[in-house]
Amino acid sequence: MPTYRIDLAYDGSAFRGYAANPGVRTVQGELEEVLAAVLQQEVSTVVAGRTDAGVHARGQVVSFSVEVAIDPARVQRAVNKRLAPEVVVTAATEAADDFSARFAARSRTYRYFVDDAGVPDPARRWRAWHVPGPLDVDAMNQAAAHFIGEHDFASLCRAAEGKTTIRMVNTAAWWRENGAVVFEVNAAAFCHQMVRSLVALCVEVGRGRLGAEEVPAIIDARDRNAARGAAPPSGLALWSVEY
Amino acid sequence: MPTYRIDLAYDGSAFRGYAANPGVRTVQGELEEVLAAVLQQEVSTVVAGRTDAGVHARGQVVSFSVEVAIDPARVQRAVNKRLAPEVVVTAATEAADDFSARFAARSRTYRYFVDDAGVPDPARRWRAWHVPGPLDVDAMNQAAAHFIGEHDFASLCRAAEGKTTIRMVNTAAWWRENGAVVFEVNAAAFCHQMVRSLVALCVEVGRGRLGAEEVPAIIDARDRNAARGAAPPSGLALWSVEY
Repeated sequence: MPTYRIDLAYDGSAFRGYAANPGVRTVQGELEEVLAAVLQQEVSTVVAGRTDAGVHARGQVVSFSVEVAIDPARVQRAVNKRLAPEVVVTAATEAADDFSARFAARSRTYRYFVDDAGVPDPARRWRAWHVPGPLDVDAMNQAAAHFIGEHDFASLCRAAEGKTTIRMVNTAAWWRENGAVVFEVNAAAFCHQMVRSLVALCVEVGRGRLGAEEVPAIIDARDRNAARGAAPPSGLALWSVEY
Repeated sequence: MPTYRIDLAYDGSAFRGYAANPGVRTVQGELEEVLAAVLQQEVSTVVAGRTDAGVHARGQVVSFSVEVAIDPARVQRAVNKRLAPEVVVTAATEAADDFSARFAARSRTYRYFVDDAGVPDPARRWRAWHVPGPLDVDAMNQAAAHFIGEHDFASLCRAAEGKTTIRMVNTAAWWRENGAVVFEVNAAAFCHQMVRSLVALCVEVGRGRLGAEEVPAIIDARDRNAARGAAPPSGLALWSVEY
C-alpha cells in the first residue's frame, strides 16, 4: 500500500498531548480529522514521538498508508489551510511501502528551554520554563554527563507497570542561546516524563541546591522519590527524529 | 502624594487589551486588582500606551499615586507572584510627585514581527504574523520612508469622531532578525490601529502587490479604504516608552 511521511511542527499549548483521546483535543485527533476530510477515508497514523499535554514539536514525524496513491503536496496544503499556524506540515512525501515513523526511527532528539532571567520574559511564556537564575550551566553539564550511556532510569521516569525503564542516552548537553538556557538530549527512545525529569534534576544542580556528583546515586536508587520531579511541559519540544 | 512608576511586560494573547473594561479580562483590570489587594486600597493607574486586544508589551509604563508611601519592591514581588509570566513587573520605582506615565512620555516605540518562512513556524504563532514570503525588505523600507515626518494618517488609522489623525513619525524601518522580519516605528503618539495599518501596507509592498512609490498617494487620500486594512494584533508589541 502507498505509504506517506508527514513532517509536523506544532505548538502544544492548547492540546491535551499528541495521542488521540476521545473527548479531548489532541494533535493526532485534529490531524486525522483533516486527513479523513481531504482523503475521503479514515486514516490511521503512526507517530515517532507521543508528546505529552503542553509539549511542542519542531520535527515530529507521522506516517500512514492508504489503498490508492494520493498527492502529498495536496495533503500538506489542506492541513496547513485548516490547522496552521498551530499545527503545520513542514513536508509531506511518499515513503517506502514498509516505512513506519515509529519503528524506523533510530533516535529522538528533544530540546528543553529555560528562562533564567531575573524576572520572567512574557514573550517566552509559551515555550520556556522560568526559574530564578542565573543558572550555573557548567554544573548542569557535569550533571547531564552522568545521563549518557545505558542506565535504568526508574528514578527519572513516570513508572509504567511491567515495562523496562532501561534506556541508552547518546548525548545530553546544556548551553546558552538567545537569552535562554537550552538542553538537548538524544536517545533511541525515552520513557514517560524522562526528559522533563532530567531537566528538573539539572536545574536543581544549576541553582546550587544539589551537587552534580550526587546524580549517579539518584539514578542508582531506581526510586522516583530520589529525583526532583518533572519540569513543566511548556519548555519541551520534540526537536527532530533520526532515521 | 507619593507617585510610583511600574515598568511592565506582558503577553497580550489572552487579554481583551490593556484598558480596564467591565466584564472582560484586561491587563489594567488584573493589575489594579492585585495592587488593591497588596496596598489595601483602590489604586487608579495611568498608562503610557493603551494596547489593543492581543497586542503585547515589552516596555509598557504605568504610574500611580497613593496617600502614604509604599515599598515598590514589595509591589513588584506581589504582582509577579500572582501574574507572571503572563504579566511581569520588570521594575518598580518611586517617581517625581507629578510624574504621569502618559503625559511625561516623549515618544512610544512599537515593534511588529512578521514570519515570512515558506510554512508558518508554530513557535512564533503567539508573537508574529505569518505571510507568504519571502518579503522584499528593501522595498518595505522604501515604503516606510514615506511615513516619516508629519502627515495626516486618516488613511492609516481607525477613525475617531472629531479627533485629529495628524501625527509626527520620527523613525520607521524594517530589518531581518532571528528568522523574522521586524518593523520598528517611533512617534510621540499614534492614532488607533495606526502601527498595524502601516504594517499591512508595507507587507503588500514586500509581497510585490503594491509599489513603494504608491504610498504617498495612499496617505494623501485621507481615506481608510485607500489603505490595506490592519495586520493582526499578535505580531505587535509596545517595545519602549521614552521620557
